[in-house]
Amino acid sequence: MNNFTFYNPVKILFGKGQISAISNEIPQGARIMVTYGGGSIKKNGVYDQVMEALKDFEVLEFSGIEPNPHYETLMQAVDIAKRQQIDFFLAVGGGSVIDGTKFIVAAMEYKGADPWDILAKREPVTNATPFGAILTLPATGSEMNSGSVVTRVSTQEKLAFGSPFTFPKFSVLDPETTFTLPVRQISNGVVDAFTHVLEQYLTYPVNAPLQDRMAEAVLLTLKEEGPKAVHNPQDYDTMANFMWSATMALNGVIRTGVPTDWATHYIAHELTALHGIDHARTLAVVLPSLLRYKSGNKKAKLLQYGSRVWGVNAGTEDERIEATIQATIAFFESLDIKTKLSDYEVGEDTIKKIVARFEERGVKDLGERADIQIPDVKQILTMSL
Amino acid sequence: MNNFTFYNPVKILFGKGQISAISNEIPQGARIMVTYGGGSIKKNGVYDQVMEALKDFEVLEFSGIEPNPHYETLMQAVDIAKRQQIDFFLAVGGGSVIDGTKFIVAAMEYKGADPWDILAKREPVTNATPFGAILTLPATGSEMNSGSVVTRVSTQEKLAFGSPFTFPKFSVLDPETTFTLPVRQISNGVVDAFTHVLEQYLTYPVNAPLQDRMAEAVLLTLKEEGPKAVHNPQDYDTMANFMWSATMALNGVIRTGVPTDWATHYIAHELTALHGIDHARTLAVVLPSLLRYKSGNKKAKLLQYGSRVWGVNAGTEDERIEATIQATIAFFESLDIKTKLSDYEVGEDTIKKIVARFEERGVKDLGERADIQIPDVKQILTMSL
Repeated sequence: MNNFTFYNPVKILFGKGQISAISNEIPQGARIMVTYGGGSIKKNGVYDQVMEALKDFEVLEFSGIEPNPHYETLMQAVDIAKRQQIDFFLAVGGGSVIDGTKFIVAAMEYKGADPWDILAKREPVTNATPFGAILTLPATGSEMNSGSVVTRVSTQEKLAFGSPFTFPKFSVLDPETTFTLPVRQISNGVVDAFTHVLEQYLTYPVNAPLQDRMAEAVLLTLKEEGPKAVHNPQDYDTMANFMWSATMALNGVIRTGVPTDWATHYIAHELTALHGIDHARTLAVVLPSLLRYKSGNKKAKLLQYGSRVWGVNAGTEDERIEATIQATIAFFESLDIKTKLSDYEVGEDTIKKIVARFEERGVKDLGERADIQIPDVKQILTMSL
Repeated sequence: MNNFTFYNPVKILFGKGQISAISNEIPQGARIMVTYGGGSIKKNGVYDQVMEALKDFEVLEFSGIEPNPHYETLMQAVDIAKRQQIDFFLAVGGGSVIDGTKFIVAAMEYKGADPWDILAKREPVTNATPFGAILTLPATGSEMNSGSVVTRVSTQEKLAFGSPFTFPKFSVLDPETTFTLPVRQISNGVVDAFTHVLEQYLTYPVNAPLQDRMAEAVLLTLKEEGPKAVHNPQDYDTMANFMWSATMALNGVIRTGVPTDWATHYIAHELTALHGIDHARTLAVVLPSLLRYKSGNKKAKLLQYGSRVWGVNAGTEDERIEATIQATIAFFESLDIKTKLSDYEVGEDTIKKIVARFEERGVKDLGERADIQIPDVKQILTMSL
């Protein structure tokens, strides 16, 4: 097992009716900005529950945070919040609203010239305004980690940052808030969470059997509960199991002491930045090719994953690895998530663009062995055509 | 799945060499009391590493915290620490030293007349002096939770308390600190951690498949790594896997949203209080009888545990349950942990004493269904004779 540091101070309030408990979690007298997206929370009753819970606080609203939250929009929120002396934020929505709010709270306290440098130059975040979250879309895990991904529209860049200061103080996970989600968002969420686990699990063994089994626990649960969630999104237990699995997939527990990959995410972000394809779908396109391309590096873990998650036990090692990747693809496709670039009308032009962007940005050394270079990225994307 | 709150702000520093990192985790200028036990840390080099890491702080030592830490001893530490204006504690040892230090830090800030009331009357803890821990004995999980068990010698009572204020600020888990542990303490630790999982897992199903699999992940790892740890306690990876399993067994993760039992612990504490038997050994005595006595309540989970952890899949339900309990007993005995009261020269007299103490204390409603009454306790203990 590798050395590690684990720290996750997020308080989770899980279950039906928990939104009403947030008034106990926010400092008395706080001036709160409630951040949200396109307004679906006004249709499903979540907005009303939140406002009822906050009735003793001063509340300002900031709506319109997009999927893949835009730097430009978030900076508007920062501008208003500073003028209005906001001292607590409440993100209500999915991963984009929570990620966006993490950037807002970091930018609120940023002392440098341009908050964009937090993303572009990885300038450290040394403080942030406190915030909480109410999750309405299980997928990204943002509700229980300190990471964030932000997109700058003007330059078509999608970049990540994280800091010990950008953990939510609390997150409410009420499965009932997911009952009106569109099927497309549920299947995206299942694939997103599943891929988060694989990024931390399909690397190379370091004799960490507990972490392996914990990762497999999440995978097996998503495999079982994901299709049920898509077909019956108003079943409380199904959505609860899906919701908690997506959180556990990226709260740091399964990553303790093991190498992680994240090359799939790094490459896939470009497809969203350039074409606006849903994040989960870009993962489903890149992952299978990356696993095939790096199956030598990942052999032992691919065989274990195939056996323990998909019951693939017959054939040569190469046959089992291919059957395992095929099972993963079939799982994604069964959720109506397409796995080829051509399914999204993306071709070789885009691959050229991504390669050029990576060259400009100086990208190198991706993956758990830091051995994926730009020519490898080109190969992987070409295999996904 | 049941509603739940999860909160665990303990920072874990895991791996070889991590003791040196504690100087970054303690506030500058802190006046530190280092608490420890019988002095084994002076023989294995841990004491020297700690003192080297603390060389820029003012440090006072308090040694002599016993296994099953004594209220009387801990109050001596409180007395000295108050006089010396200690404002940070560092517990160096196993669960007893860490549990004892939790009581010290709570008593330091207790405003009531008698700190014993924290245990005896469950008076709430509303503040505590901050502390960190350096774990040298994987077993209790105390390094990553807020619970504590303290024994009062004068009255032979062993009682528990917990509070959000008694989480360690940080805990160092360096597997190398365990290399010189006596075999007896290693096998105790394996059985203690294993039983912690069973208390949270062998109840009744609430449709929480992720939590079930996470619990099984810890059980399977302890089943594999435990015997290896006993036979080869200087194998780094083995001890690392054992150490992290024992922590994950009781840090709140596997308990999220599921019922818990804890009747085995409650009953077993009496055997330590009255006879000084090692905590893990008292668990090994009580657990099998409790499982047999409550096999009706626990049927579904016992069958699942048998199948997934011990591969018990053949026979009638009753046969499988008995085979599963037998497999658990055989595992404990394989670690040289005896499972009968007679193995510890304890007889019916003690059962009578425990029943009388429970009657005096007004104990009732133990277990996940709150249906274990004093006559049931008598039955369970009688089955363990």
